[in-house]
Amino acid sequence: MAPITHATGYAIKDPKNYLNFELTKYELEPLEDDRITVAVEVCGVCGSDHHTISGGWGPFQTKFVVTGHEVVGKVVEVGSNVKEFKVGQRVGVGAQVGSCGKCKSCKGTNDTYAMRCGFVGYDGKEHQGGYSTHVRAQERFVFPIPESLESTDAASMLCGGLTVFSPLVRNGAGPGKKVGVVGLGGLGHYAVLFGTALGAEVTVFSRSDAKKEDALKMGAKRFVATTEGFEKDLALEFDLIIVTASSSKLPLDQLLSTLDVEKKLVFVGMPEEGLSNVTSQTLSGNAAALASSHLGNRQEAIRMLELAAEKKVKPWVTILPMKDAAKAIKAVEDNSVRYRSILIQDIDKSA
Amino acid sequence: MAPITHATGYAIKDPKNYLNFELTKYELEPLEDDRITVAVEVCGVCGSDHHTISGGWGPFQTKFVVTGHEVVGKVVEVGSNVKEFKVGQRVGVGAQVGSCGKCKSCKGTNDTYAMRCGFVGYDGKEHQGGYSTHVRAQERFVFPIPESLESTDAASMLCGGLTVFSPLVRNGAGPGKKVGVVGLGGLGHYAVLFGTALGAEVTVFSRSDAKKEDALKMGAKRFVATTEGFEKDLALEFDLIIVTASSSKLPLDQLLSTLDVEKKLVFVGMPEEGLSNVTSQTLSGNAAALASSHLGNRQEAIRMLELAAEKKVKPWVTILPMKDAAKAIKAVEDNSVRYRSILIQDIDKSA
Repeated sequence: MAPITHATGYAIKDPKNYLNFELTKYELEPLEDDRITVAVEVCGVCGSDHHTISGGWGPFQTKFVVTGHEVVGKVVEVGSNVKEFKVGQRVGVGAQVGSCGKCKSCKGTNDTYAMRCGFVGYDGKEHQGGYSTHVRAQERFVFPIPESLESTDAASMLCGGLTVFSPLVRNGAGPGKKVGVVGLGGLGHYAVLFGTALGAEVTVFSRSDAKKEDALKMGAKRFVATTEGFEKDLALEFDLIIVTASSSKLPLDQLLSTLDVEKKLVFVGMPEEGLSNVTSQTLSGNAAALASSHLGNRQEAIRMLELAAEKKVKPWVTILPMKDAAKAIKAVEDNSVRYRSILIQDIDKSA
Repeated sequence: MAPITHATGYAIKDPKNYLNFELTKYELEPLEDDRITVAVEVCGVCGSDHHTISGGWGPFQTKFVVTGHEVVGKVVEVGSNVKEFKVGQRVGVGAQVGSCGKCKSCKGTNDTYAMRCGFVGYDGKEHQGGYSTHVRAQERFVFPIPESLESTDAASMLCGGLTVFSPLVRNGAGPGKKVGVVGLGGLGHYAVLFGTALGAEVTVFSRSDAKKEDALKMGAKRFVATTEGFEKDLALEFDLIIVTASSSKLPLDQLLSTLDVEKKLVFVGMPEEGLSNVTSQTLSGNAAALASSHLGNRQEAIRMLELAAEKKVKPWVTILPMKDAAKAIKAVEDNSVRYRSILIQDIDKSA
C-alpha cells in the first residue's frame, strides 16, 4: 500500500462560523519511527471540541481546525519502532497524541501532565483531529480496544471516560467507598458508570430532580438535588467527590462539608470564573482538598477499557454520521445530548 | 491533697480591652473519670489567643476568657479511669481538651476533626485555658513529654508544632522529598524545623529576603523571595507546600505551579478572605490540590515529641513571666515575635 500522506476531514475555518464544517484535504505530519496511522471509524464529540472550534480557548493556531479526539479505528501504518501494534488492529486514540518522553512527568506515569511537552503540536508539527479519515499518534498514546467493546461505545471513553476514571482510581474508588458525582452530563454519566463498575456507591448531585431517573438507571444508589440545606444529613459522608459541572455557582462550601476527613473534591469540569466562594476555613473543618485532574495515563486507559469489557459498561450515546458534526456540536452547546454523541465515518477516502 | 475545685488565671473580660489581663479565680469543670488536672508550668502564646481575646473569632461565650492552649505542667489529679498517667508526671495539653469519643472521626484517628463534638465546651461545660494555674483535659488529649525536652521548648509544639507536623507526615515529608514552606512566623519556623528533622529538603518562600538568614539557620536548604517570576525555575519541583502565611494576597497560582503532579498545597494559616484568585484551570495543569488542615492527632503528637527529643529540635522562643501576657500578645499582633513566646507560671497558688 502506498504511504499515506494526506487526510480529509470536516474542518472549521473561522471560529465565528463554528458550525460550518467543510470537507478539507490536508497533509499529515510525518510518520516518525514511533508513530501509528489510524484510519478513523468513529469519533466521539467532546465539550472541548466546542470550545476549540468556537475560539473559546483562544484563536486558531492553524489555517483551519479539524477537531475530535475520541477516535476508534484501524491501524493502517506503523513506524519502524512500533512494537505493540500491527496493521489491521482496532485501536483507540484519545486527547493526547504525543509527548517528549524525556521530562519528569513523561518518565513517570504522568505523561498526560507533561504540558510543557505540548499536546497537539508537541513536536512543532501541525496536528489535526478525528472528524477525519486519518489521525497519527505516538505508540504510547494508542490503546488496544478489547474485542467485546463496540467501537461506538469505546470511542467516548477515550477522553470523557478516562477523564473521570483517572481521579476515581487515583483516589481509591471501590467497594466500601462512597463517591459523589456533581452534574450529570457526558462526564458525570461516565463517573456514575465507572464509579459503579469499580464497586463504589455513587451519589449524584444535580441542581434539580430532572435527571434523577437517568442517574438511578446508570447505577447511582442515591440522587440529591442541591437545594437549600441538602448537605445537612451528609456531613463527613463521602470518600471522594468528582465535580463534572462547569458552573462557577456550585454550592462548594456545602459539597466540601460532605467529605470525610482528608478527602478530595476533584474538578474535571472547568468553571471559567474563579472559585471565589472558597476560603481556607471551608477546607479546614474536615481537612478537605480541592483538586483538579485531567486526562488519565496509559495504564489507566488500558485498565478502564478492560473493566468496561469485563463489567459490560454501556455508555449512553447518540450515533450520527460524521457529516452531522454540526448537529452534535449544537447538542453540546444546548446541553441536550444524553449523554455523548458519536460520529460514524462517512468520508469517501478516494475523494 | 484536697480536691482541686478552682483555678486562677489571667482573664480578659472585654474583647475591646484585650490586653487588659486581670487575675481571676474561677471554678473548674468537674473531674470526670477520664480527666486529668494539670498544674500549669509554662504556656505558649499562639496567634489563636490573639484572635480569641480580641473577639476576632466572635464575641465571648463566657463572662471572661482565659486563653492559652500550649500547656506543659505536672499531673496533680487523675480521674478514676485514667490509665496512662500518674500524679507528678510532666505532661502537655494542646488546643483540644476533649471530644465525644463516639462519632466517626473520634473512633478513627481524626478526633481532632470531630468538630461536631466541640472543642472547648464539648461537654456543655465551661473550659478555660492555660494562662492560669490549672487546666483539666480528657486523658486522650494529654501527652507525655520526653524527659530530654525542656518544658519551654515543648510547650509551643503542642499547637504550633503539631499544626504543621500533621500535614508534613500525612503527606509523606521525609528523605528525598522537597517541601515548600510559605511564610516564616511561628508556624513556618516549626515547618522548617520539623520538615528538616523528618529528613525532607525544605525551601522557604517569603515576600522579601528579610528572614533569609533565620530560615537557613533553622535548616532550610533554600530561600525564595516571592518576587515577579520566582516560580519560573521551580515548575513541578515540590512534593508538598505548607502555607503558614495568612495573607489573602498570596501568589497562589505561581506557588501551585511549583508542585509536582497530584501534590498538595496545605493551608495552616487562615486568610480571612476567599481564595478568589484560584481557578480550577490553575489546579488542572499538574492536578494540584488545595487543602487545609488543623491540629494533628494523638499519634502524631506523640511521634512529634519523640522526634523532637531524638533530633534535638530546638524552637526559637522568647520566654516571659505569665504576667507579661499582654506583651506577648502585642508581639503576635505586631508580627515581631521571633518565633514563639512562652509564658512561665508566676501566679501565687495560695491566692
